[in-house]
Amino acid sequence: MIVAGATGFAGALAAYLLWRHPDFELVSVIGRSEEGRRLDDLYPRYRVPLPIERLDLDRLDGVDAAVVAYPHAAAAPTVGALLERGVRIVDLSADFRLRSQATYERWYGEHPRADLLAEAVYGLTELHREKIAGAAIVANPGCYPTASLLALAPLARAGLIADVVIDAKQGISGAGRAFDETTHLSMAGENILPYKVAAHRHTPEIEEQLALLGAELAVQLQTHLVPLDQGELASCYVTPTRVIAATELAELFADAYAGEPFVELADEPPGVREVRETNFCRIFAAADAHTGKVLVFSAIDNLWKGTSSQAVQNLNLMFGLPETRGLA
Amino acid sequence: MIVAGATGFAGALAAYLLWRHPDFELVSVIGRSEEGRRLDDLYPRYRVPLPIERLDLDRLDGVDAAVVAYPHAAAAPTVGALLERGVRIVDLSADFRLRSQATYERWYGEHPRADLLAEAVYGLTELHREKIAGAAIVANPGCYPTASLLALAPLARAGLIADVVIDAKQGISGAGRAFDETTHLSMAGENILPYKVAAHRHTPEIEEQLALLGAELAVQLQTHLVPLDQGELASCYVTPTRVIAATELAELFADAYAGEPFVELADEPPGVREVRETNFCRIFAAADAHTGKVLVFSAIDNLWKGTSSQAVQNLNLMFGLPETRGLA
Amino acid sequence: MIVAGATGFAGALAAYLLWRHPDFELVSVIGRSEEGRRLDDLYPRYRVPLPIERLDLDRLDGVDAAVVAYPHAAAAPTVGALLERGVRIVDLSADFRLRSQATYERWYGEHPRADLLAEAVYGLTELHREKIAGAAIVANPGCYPTASLLALAPLARAGLIADVVIDAKQGISGAGRAFDETTHLSMAGENILPYKVAAHRHTPEIEEQLALLGAELAVQLQTHLVPLDQGELASCYVTPTRVIAATELAELFADAYAGEPFVELADEPPGVREVRETNFCRIFAAADAHTGKVLVFSAIDNLWKGTSSQAVQNLNLMFGLPETRGLA
Amino acid sequence: MIVAGATGFAGALAAYLLWRHPDFELVSVIGRSEEGRRLDDLYPRYRVPLPIERLDLDRLDGVDAAVVAYPHAAAAPTVGALLERGVRIVDLSADFRLRSQATYERWYGEHPRADLLAEAVYGLTELHREKIAGAAIVANPGCYPTASLLALAPLARAGLIADVVIDAKQGISGAGRAFDETTHLSMAGENILPYKVAAHRHTPEIEEQLALLGAELAVQLQTHLVPLDQGELASCYVTPTRVIAATELAELFADAYAGEPFVELADEPPGVREVRETNFCRIFAAADAHTGKVLVFSAIDNLWKGTSSQAVQNLNLMFGLPETRGLA
Repeated sequence: MIVAGATGFAGALAAYLLWRHPDFELVSVIGRSEEGRRLDDLYPRYRVPLPIERLDLDRLDGVDAAVVAYPHAAAAPTVGALLERGVRIVDLSADFRLRSQATYERWYGEHPRADLLAEAVYGLTELHREKIAGAAIVANPGCYPTASLLALAPLARAGLIADVVIDAKQGISGAGRAFDETTHLSMAGENILPYKVAAHRHTPEIEEQLALLGAELAVQLQTHLVPLDQGELASCYVTPTRVIAATELAELFADAYAGEPFVELADEPPGVREVRETNFCRIFAAADAHTGKVLVFSAIDNLWKGTSSQAVQNLNLMFGLPETRGLA
Repeated sequence: MIVAGATGFAGALAAYLLWRHPDFELVSVIGRSEEGRRLDDLYPRYRVPLPIERLDLDRLDGVDAAVVAYPHAAAAPTVGALLERGVRIVDLSADFRLRSQATYERWYGEHPRADLLAEAVYGLTELHREKIAGAAIVANPGCYPTASLLALAPLARAGLIADVVIDAKQGISGAGRAFDETTHLSMAGENILPYKVAAHRHTPEIEEQLALLGAELAVQLQTHLVPLDQGELASCYVTPTRVIAATELAELFADAYAGEPFVELADEPPGVREVRETNFCRIFAAADAHTGKVLVFSAIDNLWKGTSSQAVQNLNLMFGLPETRGLA
Repeated sequence: MIVAGATGFAGALAAYLLWRHPDFELVSVIGRSEEGRRLDDLYPRYRVPLPIERLDLDRLDGVDAAVVAYPHAAAAPTVGALLERGVRIVDLSADFRLRSQATYERWYGEHPRADLLAEAVYGLTELHREKIAGAAIVANPGCYPTASLLALAPLARAGLIADVVIDAKQGISGAGRAFDETTHLSMAGENILPYKVAAHRHTPEIEEQLALLGAELAVQLQTHLVPLDQGELASCYVTPTRVIAATELAELFADAYAGEPFVELADEPPGVREVRETNFCRIFAAADAHTGKVLVFSAIDNLWKGTSSQAVQNLNLMFGLPETRGLA
Repeated sequence: MIVAGATGFAGALAAYLLWRHPDFELVSVIGRSEEGRRLDDLYPRYRVPLPIERLDLDRLDGVDAAVVAYPHAAAAPTVGALLERGVRIVDLSADFRLRSQATYERWYGEHPRADLLAEAVYGLTELHREKIAGAAIVANPGCYPTASLLALAPLARAGLIADVVIDAKQGISGAGRAFDETTHLSMAGENILPYKVAAHRHTPEIEEQLALLGAELAVQLQTHLVPLDQGELASCYVTPTRVIAATELAELFADAYAGEPFVELADEPPGVREVRETNFCRIFAAADAHTGKVLVFSAIDNLWKGTSSQAVQNLNLMFGLPETRGLA
């Protein structure tokens, strides 16, 4: 197993999770920069003692899977090259998340490997478990879609969503290893900042998946940066298609997530601390009698369930292991 | 001038702002606890060298105004007693914010001085400037209503609000000098926490004021604690009664706030750092062509414009001073 | 195995570590408050689904060990009672850390069970490994002594310490589940606060242990709170008894900690992030040619190696397991 | 009045303080980057509505003073050029802080304008008030020397310092507008990091000034970054030349700072919050009977008294204004 793009936050965490995994063997960490430096020098806390290497497509003997953590557009060619050498991939970028090439190109520009779109399976484990198990390319979801879709799926399937506002808040790690005004502690600290107003690239991803569940609608997704490291909360305000009682709502969610190892239904609004550095998604749903709306709060760790630990959850599935292996 | 309830965050800040004010004389700080201790011992940073005293209604000669910073229900009797001695009051509690006694009692229990409700003026300066100037009791707004109403007033007046979700985020100072799980740095830090789901007491205050502006509707207000000290952002998602173009929206806000010394219309989404320790409210409005919704972001310092500096802004008006005196 | 005092930060973490431990079975969590509540309600993140119970000394069948996490003076009687029922104990309090009863009573008042002092072994694993393995009572060190002694032991053994200043900085979790001015985010945030000036109770503990290593001296320990959750850095400034070259210094530490699974010698000054939520102590030593002093920086997680994970490290020893079991 | 280097943290704050100053007129803000952008776009919170310009030495009519906030080596040529046009300067860089050219060149490389060293006055206001009043170049002290020297000056003058360790902690703003690992919230947050071990450039500055006060010695200065924005604490551990009683110590400091408008002697250890965004230095001194050492804690805001507000304090002196003008 290899991680390509291990110098970023998501790739480094994936490397850490695979390094400590009881059944996988991480043999190489690939970086486009920092070559020769050891990963535990760049990320001391993760203690992965491997050197950062260039990707050598001729030295992939015995490598059966890869996590690719490159930016969108840069990921697809690497995914393609690996696939051609028989490597199965969990891709953390946006390149294979959307089924519609046209939608992709509206948001991200020309698709470098549109020919592979049909091969990819959307990697929100709880929604597409069976397909993921057999997939050659798993397109790991964005962190906002992960939190949002787990919050909304039970309502979407039941045909209950007439309209929805998703107000999402995320810690600074969501900006990744970017060094700028949005991540400097003296600028990001003591701040609350809305960003990508009326234009978040995760919107079509959420809409496409909701449509698959039966809810065709334009989604209002608004994201905010708040001053913590890891953690993400999606506060979803649903205008339902009909009145929903509190008990019906509770049953709907209980049924939807019975037996799910990583979805927790909470008795009160979840704080993101409760899921920090875990693969859990913690959900609380409430019906507001005053406004008639349904409120769903969904907390994840944006780097874990929102990105890298969900990748491991998917790899477990792809290799016939219990989903919780290396994550519990 | 006196401050009653100076040991809490809001009262202490009001004392600081009045102490440094060029035209007001702060003669006494009143506390129900910590008697005898000096305020600059309790709040070193504010450097107000006055002893905390008990309120003595017989020693109010020459006192023409008071800021009352007691909790709801505790405030009203003190407000009444001061009023009877000719003292004009800015009350920071909820006791006189609602015009409807029935609404008050639904949320807060029996009103201790309902007889005075008719005397009180709602102290959102930008909305009620003229009445505030002559008022005997000014009911200073809650911090969430301040941010929300300044965001929504232009739309409400124009009859443009069909529905609204207000997702508000606030720093930990919003919990006040409360020592518990919500304020402990090891619990509140690295957290994002929704609270008072479907039941925030500031909701009726917002609804009553919106109704005065012509918008009768049930408001969805949801509040969250995020790990900073001072700062509050209201993200307002308005379903408009008709399509609004971006230019019309810009004009609507520009017209509404032309000449306002403390409302800033921003060219991009505001961060709360930009208004920290100021009386400014910074607003950004956008029309989302994808969903048809209107988004308004409103940033204030919850302790300043959200509470204590707005109290000083109102006192300036009440005593015929320029609104910006002591606040610029 | 049980944890007594599981409602505090240290006890709750110990419960978590034992709950997930592959070889120990946590059968009960004891609290003096919050009885009946579940531990995962109080500490959701730890996900220990046990009810908080009162200690019942008649229901200890099969319990062979306990972590006691009560405050000093409250711990000793419980330790005694458990010991009399054949339970081996790791005590997190100060009650059994000092060998001298007189010293204890100077700092803490009368000792409730001075008769047991001789039975206790000081639980800094790296210094007293062999005695810990056979001990009935292990007195787990304070967090400041843990970081300080690991930094100073190689120098003390070599007779190289003429004088030492320890300037220690710690996150807010060090104050425990205390709700007051030192932990409120709006007071502890954006602050750096020295505390217990010239009077920290951990001083005699450090001095007694240094003396055992051959260094009899009065230690200057000064502690500070800084605004993070978990993490502690001891910056030690040693005036050496003779000139020490950089190479000699490096060898001294390399020899001292060769093979230690939880002591890491760093090539550059350690940040506490590098050891967060681990049992590692990360150390960097340097000789300052300008002043002739030796500088040693020692980073730990105050709740982990500084408290609860070191307790598990000791339990591993006491029960013949590899020291790293459940901690790697 | 102009500020050169207004795009950095220190220059921007100087611009803000001069913009709001009742007696100075800020006519231009100069930057080597961001030309044409407005300063209130780069630093919204400061609300200085001036465009960032290039320095034009031919357009300095009527400019009688400048704050220069360039990095060392870049500052000196600009200082020289301004001086030749009759502009008096407060220089925030290290270029004119050291009286010894040799010492400067050991730490910083060749001095671009060593010819001007004799003209410069060291700008620690409380130590050199009279010379500053008449100076053409004021070399504003580093933030660590400011906190350290105010802590040590009374002891140095009295010949009481045999040895000293200064353990200093600072918020992330001390790293300036640098975008890297030391400032990214996801790396700097939840961290405590020693830096520049045994090699801080502020050491010779402190030693040179202590020598002027009569204390010739090698100073141990060690700096640390802690996760807050603005604030700095110097914890000074002095080995005295003789035993000092607590009362003598108290008198020494009381005498030294009687009448000082910006030095506060505290009754207990100061937290940096108490001086945030002020020009105050808050000092607490204690004699430790156990070790015989004298401990002095000195808290400042590194960007205010440590840099930009002290520059304004000096400008007040240079132009015959009360030292507190624009700062109280």
